[in-house]
Amino acid sequence: MVHEGRKRVIIQHVKPEIEGGTYPIKRVIGEKVVIEADVFADGHDAVAASVLYKSRNNATWKEVTMNFIENDKWVGEFTVKELGMYYYTVKGWINHFKSWQKAIKKKYDAGSDITIDLHVGVDLITQASQKASGSDQKKLEEYADHLKNGDKEQAVLIALNEELGELIDNYKDTEFATLYGKELTVVVDRKKALFSTWYERFPRSRSPKSGKHGTFKDCEKLLPEIGRMGFDILYFPPIHPIGKTNRKGKNNSLVAEPDDEGSPWAIGSDEGGHKAVHPKLGTIKDFERLVHKAKEYEIEIAIDLAFQCSPDHPYVKEHPEWFKWRPDGTIQFAENPPKKYEDIVSLNFETDQWHALWEELKSVVMFWIERGIRTFRVDNPHTKPFLFWEWLIKEIKDAYPEVIFLSEAFTRPKVMHFLAKLGFIQSYTYFTWRNTKREFIDYLTELLHTNEREYFRPNFWTNTPDILPEHIQYGGKPASIMRLVLAATLSSNYGIYGPPFELCVNEALSDREEYLNSEKYEVRCWDWDSPGNIKEWIVRINKIRRDNPALQTTWNLKFYEVDNDYLLFYGKATEDLSNIILIVVNLDPFHTQLGWVRVPLAELEIDPHQPYLVHDLLSDDKYIWHGERNYVELNPQISPAHILRVRKRLKRETDFDYFM
Amino acid sequence: MVHEGRKRVIIQHVKPEIEGGTYPIKRVIGEKVVIEADVFADGHDAVAASVLYKSRNNATWKEVTMNFIENDKWVGEFTVKELGMYYYTVKGWINHFKSWQKAIKKKYDAGSDITIDLHVGVDLITQASQKASGSDQKKLEEYADHLKNGDKEQAVLIALNEELGELIDNYKDTEFATLYGKELTVVVDRKKALFSTWYERFPRSRSPKSGKHGTFKDCEKLLPEIGRMGFDILYFPPIHPIGKTNRKGKNNSLVAEPDDEGSPWAIGSDEGGHKAVHPKLGTIKDFERLVHKAKEYEIEIAIDLAFQCSPDHPYVKEHPEWFKWRPDGTIQFAENPPKKYEDIVSLNFETDQWHALWEELKSVVMFWIERGIRTFRVDNPHTKPFLFWEWLIKEIKDAYPEVIFLSEAFTRPKVMHFLAKLGFIQSYTYFTWRNTKREFIDYLTELLHTNEREYFRPNFWTNTPDILPEHIQYGGKPASIMRLVLAATLSSNYGIYGPPFELCVNEALSDREEYLNSEKYEVRCWDWDSPGNIKEWIVRINKIRRDNPALQTTWNLKFYEVDNDYLLFYGKATEDLSNIILIVVNLDPFHTQLGWVRVPLAELEIDPHQPYLVHDLLSDDKYIWHGERNYVELNPQISPAHILRVRKRLKRETDFDYFM
Repeated sequence: MVHEGRKRVIIQHVKPEIEGGTYPIKRVIGEKVVIEADVFADGHDAVAASVLYKSRNNATWKEVTMNFIENDKWVGEFTVKELGMYYYTVKGWINHFKSWQKAIKKKYDAGSDITIDLHVGVDLITQASQKASGSDQKKLEEYADHLKNGDKEQAVLIALNEELGELIDNYKDTEFATLYGKELTVVVDRKKALFSTWYERFPRSRSPKSGKHGTFKDCEKLLPEIGRMGFDILYFPPIHPIGKTNRKGKNNSLVAEPDDEGSPWAIGSDEGGHKAVHPKLGTIKDFERLVHKAKEYEIEIAIDLAFQCSPDHPYVKEHPEWFKWRPDGTIQFAENPPKKYEDIVSLNFETDQWHALWEELKSVVMFWIERGIRTFRVDNPHTKPFLFWEWLIKEIKDAYPEVIFLSEAFTRPKVMHFLAKLGFIQSYTYFTWRNTKREFIDYLTELLHTNEREYFRPNFWTNTPDILPEHIQYGGKPASIMRLVLAATLSSNYGIYGPPFELCVNEALSDREEYLNSEKYEVRCWDWDSPGNIKEWIVRINKIRRDNPALQTTWNLKFYEVDNDYLLFYGKATEDLSNIILIVVNLDPFHTQLGWVRVPLAELEIDPHQPYLVHDLLSDDKYIWHGERNYVELNPQISPAHILRVRKRLKRETDFDYFM
Repeated sequence: MVHEGRKRVIIQHVKPEIEGGTYPIKRVIGEKVVIEADVFADGHDAVAASVLYKSRNNATWKEVTMNFIENDKWVGEFTVKELGMYYYTVKGWINHFKSWQKAIKKKYDAGSDITIDLHVGVDLITQASQKASGSDQKKLEEYADHLKNGDKEQAVLIALNEELGELIDNYKDTEFATLYGKELTVVVDRKKALFSTWYERFPRSRSPKSGKHGTFKDCEKLLPEIGRMGFDILYFPPIHPIGKTNRKGKNNSLVAEPDDEGSPWAIGSDEGGHKAVHPKLGTIKDFERLVHKAKEYEIEIAIDLAFQCSPDHPYVKEHPEWFKWRPDGTIQFAENPPKKYEDIVSLNFETDQWHALWEELKSVVMFWIERGIRTFRVDNPHTKPFLFWEWLIKEIKDAYPEVIFLSEAFTRPKVMHFLAKLGFIQSYTYFTWRNTKREFIDYLTELLHTNEREYFRPNFWTNTPDILPEHIQYGGKPASIMRLVLAATLSSNYGIYGPPFELCVNEALSDREEYLNSEKYEVRCWDWDSPGNIKEWIVRINKIRRDNPALQTTWNLKFYEVDNDYLLFYGKATEDLSNIILIVVNLDPFHTQLGWVRVPLAELEIDPHQPYLVHDLLSDDKYIWHGERNYVELNPQISPAHILRVRKRLKRETDFDYFM
């Protein structure tokens, strides 16, 4: 038999809850957790429910009342304020006093005799007053007296008194309350986990002004311009020594010329491995100086965690047991048949020595944390075991909850989601391959309005060293600007790989989405100020993001109606509607597109009878709109998008002041 | 750190799984359990998965291979054959040999050197042969030899040999296999839990031929006719002594006349309680004789479990602690303010003595089980605690897995579903209040194509002593027949409350769905053969159900297209398509409706170029249909429905033979 048979309340379908509570949900500081649950009991008694929550650092449960919505669903919420972990659960109980209130009202209205019911009420109040003390106790005693001594009309009014209900609630009998069986977890990250602006750059790239191979010192000189463009994370592909065995030549050729520098992802040589830096980039000290210097520009340096080795990596000699060896005594190179990666050997996570391997890889992360790094872009996490990542991220974040891991997994949807579920803080997405209106709406709806929203934080990239998307290859500068606006306004986390992006580089290997003369295999020389660059667009868009809190989250995105399939119309607003941004993007980089948008007036609390101002923050143009349907026209050669800040008419403003 | 870091396979989203495995799914003997799961690993290795299952009586796991479907989803199935419990879970592992096979094929096709890869294969085969013995070992050794000594073309053919793959699979290395963390449960019921035909009757009803108050002996005489009508469960409302205090009069009046017999739900008097029978019905012995006699007609007697008392119930004196008492020393009557049930007192499940109360109620069930009862209709289970039912049903079914509990909960959807989830074997539904085509499609889709399907077994009732539905009040005999066809063919479990149903009784209390002069409050006299009865329709429909296995399950129901909103077109077929039934119902009891149905030829494997016969089992009419679109016309005065058995043209039959 059960331990306590008098627990009559059932709590089910608590949301959010990921895989029965096995994995945490994610929030950043200041975000809300809205919890819903089905809470019900047998019979007709009144039910009550609350959310219990606590942070890891403050072990006392706090309680917030849940409100009944409909169909046995209750909702409550709290806001996370501390970095680290929060826990939450749900409590439900029978509210006997409220049941009594409901019954007495119905009986009184039906003209039934309530004499004895009033006595029952006196007993309930007296029970509460015995638990209370001080003024509460006194008040409750007074209520009981009034109920006993007043006439029926008075008594009913007292019975239904709201203050009385609340008072009793403070001394409620929750002996037989039901606690939801699980304590669910929230991982709370810093705000940057939700609002970040990434710039990827190979530190070895050189400028026409500098020498042959870029250095950390050269990178210091780039900081002011990267800061001016509005980026707050500068991410470097691997900065470690590069192997020499089977080094790749330009354009991924199998034979390297003597002066070829190789792929930075072929990590490790006699000059060191994952804890060393490439001598041509400088020293660890130079790197630390750069990290420090970047902070002056509010830029954080992110590095790449690529857990793989060149055949020359020190691990190969020191820990042959961490690699796969073939029957002929040679090492097993990385391959995804028939593709081969001759300059790389994979770590063998099925080794008996997996324990030592895991610890070593953790020590790599710790090494860079000790050098000031708090953000890691993780290369191909889907080719290393899930259990390893789950363990690693948990270990690191237990000690450094501010650390961000970005998962670079371009693979099958369930694998991508699972990596996010097990702990990755941000994730690459399929954005790069979404082009049509239908595709954007479907994909964003999936990201925002399914369970994924609780654990998968998208980071939209316009391009990467691995992906020169078709639309940028063919759509020229208008396409680049269009993709920039989409990435930067659909998602609050976004990134570009520069300078190719802002220089609108579009030369690809034939029939592929791969850059011609890719920086992955050679040192490129970029003239950052060459004509046709879109740096000023980037400056403007990143400023708009910084100035408008509505654009600093992804979760508030809504798509709206526009009667042209080449136009995408969407909006973001702060919860208090003090900042409302409407965006129209022309998805056709070749032709002017026009149409009528339908502004959701009621949702945005815009007076349908008054004109309102929309201010295009991209062009600085202003338009006076009126009502739901308004005309838009976008010539991609001029601007492929409107980013409109809505200014509603304020009371007592004169038209003159308002439209100035 | 985790215990074993080399488990690379992830298993997620195992379905069916109810509330994380807290509640079992339900099947009847002979039904399949189809299990799906997301199974995937890091990297590019081949993954394999299987379902493990066992019955409670046979503790060794059996293993069935799961097949890959798409998007990392795998499916496997097994059939339950024993009453009681089954358990199932999922296993996944890396299939290294298959990975090797895939790789060697790709490399060979790409013209790469595979010399060393062949050596790797030899090692893999040798590992398996070391685990094997007898002929398997010999075969594996031969394969290894061939692989070593053949030329490359031969070697590749050997490598990809299917028999080799299967052989190795038998000796697979699942040391690092992942077991899904939970063992999920199936409750296996007897077939009647899914296919049952209920007839509800007050045993005290009398016939013009018999005396004043019906008896169990009178009921014996009804058995042949109930059997002839095709019912296999005869369910009686409570058969216990009826209280005298506040006894209800006719039509629920507060004052009973001296000859009023009261409501059978006001259980208990000085003549006994839940373990006694009403003296006017006969003795326990009479009852046992009836139960025994019914078996001759393949009829099972079901009784009502109504856990409530009249104020005269022996429990009130013997166990005052099981009831609620009011401050004036009077007992608390059942009420749902402002409604009162003056002849009933509720049990107080919040009593300190809940433990003893639960045990006593269990002893009531056991008492009737010992007298041959295996099916219980449970009155208002939603007004007693859920934990109680969960415990009670589990206790009973552990010892008597054949017992059926039917939940009579007409309440909010989540409460109804939860009762099914916690253990009820069949459930009343909202069928009685579904009338339009849209309503039927929506409701059945919810019952059949959501998670509910795994635990909520619907039982469709045309009417009950509490519900004389509006459509029967106004639609006359055509409506009664229409509702009969719908209940009996949409759901494999259905029931009627007779004789009022088959006599098409439609006199209701004004503006209510309540029978006038309800048998709940008086003994009624029924002339079972009065003109206008629809008994022969019932005989025919129940025979059709018995003859056609397609109608003996609910889960195979599919709705099809028909271009008239008053016509409902649906079908049921056995898995092997040997029995196909198509049903068209005219939902309008007043007018002839006609339209064109669209028969799903491909799904039913009907040749689109050949005519096929549809045989109306209701009217015995035959029609030759051809292709997808076929004409139907239903005059509700003649027949409101077609129940069509499809006979496809068989090869080698002459047209003459076929259409005879």
